[in-house]
Amino acid sequence: MIRILFSGGPEDRWATYSDVLPQALEAAGIEAEIRQDWPPEQVDYIVYAPNEDLTDFSPYVNCKAVLNLWAGVEGLTKNDTLTQPLTRMVDRGLTEGMVEWVTGHVLRHHLGMDAHIVNPDHEWNWAPPPLARKRPVTMLGLGELGEACARSLAALNFPVTGWSRSLKDIDGITCVAGDDGLAGALAAAEIVVLLLPLTPETRNLMDAERLAGMKRGAVLINPGRGPLIDDDALLAALDDGQIAHATLDVFREEPLPRDHPYWAHPRVTVTPHIASATRPDTAAEVIAENIRRAEAGEPLLYRVDRDAGY
Amino acid sequence: MIRILFSGGPEDRWATYSDVLPQALEAAGIEAEIRQDWPPEQVDYIVYAPNEDLTDFSPYVNCKAVLNLWAGVEGLTKNDTLTQPLTRMVDRGLTEGMVEWVTGHVLRHHLGMDAHIVNPDHEWNWAPPPLARKRPVTMLGLGELGEACARSLAALNFPVTGWSRSLKDIDGITCVAGDDGLAGALAAAEIVVLLLPLTPETRNLMDAERLAGMKRGAVLINPGRGPLIDDDALLAALDDGQIAHATLDVFREEPLPRDHPYWAHPRVTVTPHIASATRPDTAAEVIAENIRRAEAGEPLLYRVDRDAGY
Ligand SMILES: NC(=O)c1ccc[n+]([C@@H]2O[C@H](COP(=O)([O-])OP(=O)(O)OC[C@H]3O[C@@H](n4cnc5c(N)ncnc54)[C@H](OP(=O)(O)O)[C@@H]3O)[C@@H](O)[C@H]2O)c1
Ligand SMILES: NC(=O)c1ccc[n+]([C@@H]2O[C@H](COP(=O)([O-])OP(=O)(O)OC[C@H]3O[C@@H](n4cnc5c(N)ncnc54)[C@H](OP(=O)(O)O)[C@@H]3O)[C@@H](O)[C@H]2O)c1
Repeated sequence: MIRILFSGGPEDRWATYSDVLPQALEAAGIEAEIRQDWPPEQVDYIVYAPNEDLTDFSPYVNCKAVLNLWAGVEGLTKNDTLTQPLTRMVDRGLTEGMVEWVTGHVLRHHLGMDAHIVNPDHEWNWAPPPLARKRPVTMLGLGELGEACARSLAALNFPVTGWSRSLKDIDGITCVAGDDGLAGALAAAEIVVLLLPLTPETRNLMDAERLAGMKRGAVLINPGRGPLIDDDALLAALDDGQIAHATLDVFREEPLPRDHPYWAHPRVTVTPHIASATRPDTAAEVIAENIRRAEAGEPLLYRVDRDAGY
Repeated sequence: MIRILFSGGPEDRWATYSDVLPQALEAAGIEAEIRQDWPPEQVDYIVYAPNEDLTDFSPYVNCKAVLNLWAGVEGLTKNDTLTQPLTRMVDRGLTEGMVEWVTGHVLRHHLGMDAHIVNPDHEWNWAPPPLARKRPVTMLGLGELGEACARSLAALNFPVTGWSRSLKDIDGITCVAGDDGLAGALAAAEIVVLLLPLTPETRNLMDAERLAGMKRGAVLINPGRGPLIDDDALLAALDDGQIAHATLDVFREEPLPRDHPYWAHPRVTVTPHIASATRPDTAAEVIAENIRRAEAGEPLLYRVDRDAGY
């Protein structure tokens, strides 16, 4: 009998897993008991989403892995009490949702939809947009999510440049890496999408200098993490017209405080961290598969590299 | 020496073809002279866009084909003086532009973007949309444009049903035909896209009854032709909430008159017939290829079936 601690924060999160997680474990042939309150030393696995109740992992001396329900693990990689193997969430639903959100917002900006959605003067301005093949897009981050989004945009004929830490080789995508790669990728694009994890290296990546290195009038789309952007620098670049619009899904503080200047800025669109949500049904299958692997002595899927920070 | 009459309406249309059309003809090995004012009986081919100056085709007794610059030919199929072979425009740029517009507006409605683009109360409503795989879309018309749009949406995992006159067989699309096929396709979808030509059969297709047969709260997107929809019936269905939103690119009268109720309706988005524009560079290649074919005695591409009306 395997003992699983579900430490997922608010009670309503457990409600979304209380059916699907036991089902997924059973389907994987795992006999387990899931509780929200095991004595720490009895726990074999922790299914986790960031919460205040469990921030010290040191009493879980027999825990074989911490299985994060979210894709981003920036809150955990800094936690020195977490010495157990850590996995992040990669699930089909998460990827599909992100591809839809990114493709949708890139097309929205490409087509200039906002001027039609809000058109109080009822202007018939016949100005067809250029074809996507004339609209260069840059994707910062080519991981699970960035690569899938880059491929979706390339399938729509957008010329896509992608930047990552290690140089990739992806059909139909111009791949670059390193500081020079970044400068060129930013300078060339009319739409830049951030799908990087938050690490010490990526924090404030989009600062005043990098924003100034973008093409004048370009659009910035951030479904990655709020602190990837220096907020003051972005607001200045928006006021100046250097950046024509920012569509932001993630913020330093969430929910975005009522008095934050992003809310009222005419060139900012706020979406409430909905670019992609972990889907309990498919996420439960990923959790069950990783427990099966750990029990069978096989390597875990989506293991976090603690040194790299993601 | 082949004599081509360019009858494209406003002078600025000729300006967009005056370079690319001679180039395309030369590339196709055709020696031709293009003018806007040949004596009718001397004309070999007419490159045409609907205009007031040329509506009587009977004096063009030696004309071998009328080559339309637009995809829609509803104005020409009713013209009894036009007895010459007639082709419509199918070009790569036209198809790509339509795929981008349709995919973009389907994703916009799927993701509920409008509530984020216009959010005066700065509400942080965390409500992620379902995945596209849970959002059925119906495409009315599976021709050059409808099929390409259906495939693009299916690639994003939308379950797509497509309706046409003759039953199709397209990988990944549920194809239907006939009146029963239409009723089922309308009832199942949360988003319906109209990509039909305007013919006596399709005029006012979306009348009160068919709108009532849609799923309550569905969205209607029309980049086809204005008269496919009974405007009064649509306005009533929008007021009632039967249709949640209509995004319309085409209208009975264009530009849409300032006092038309669509402009001010909170559930209507007007785009100014920009879903897809004929691109002179690629369109010129299609024209040149068809003249080459006619001269070589080969069948014309994209020949209009005058009986079917498209
Ligand atoms: N808004 C939402 O709803 C939502 C939902 C899910 C995830 N997210 C965010 O999306 C992020 C990306 O997710 P993912 O699953 O795609 O992550 P991932 O698979 O770990 O990929 C991360 C990518 O970023 C690159 N990268 C990391 N550090 C870099 C650096 N210093 N310089 C250049 N490239 C760097 C990586 O390069 P290598 O390939 O060379 O390692 C990789 O390509 C998550 O970390 C999370 O913050 C947001
Ligand atoms: N908004 C814009 O910017 C823009 C730009 C270009 C075109 N358009 C419009 O888009 C329309 C479609 O273009 P296209 O190139 O895809 O045309 P197409 O290749 O001729 O395809 C027309 C499709 O509609 C179907 N259809 C015709 N009559 C029907 C009926 N009575 N019942 C059921 N299905 C019927 C046809 O069925 P079969 O396959 O069985 O023949 C075919 O699938 C054009 O006619 C034009 O009005 C708009």
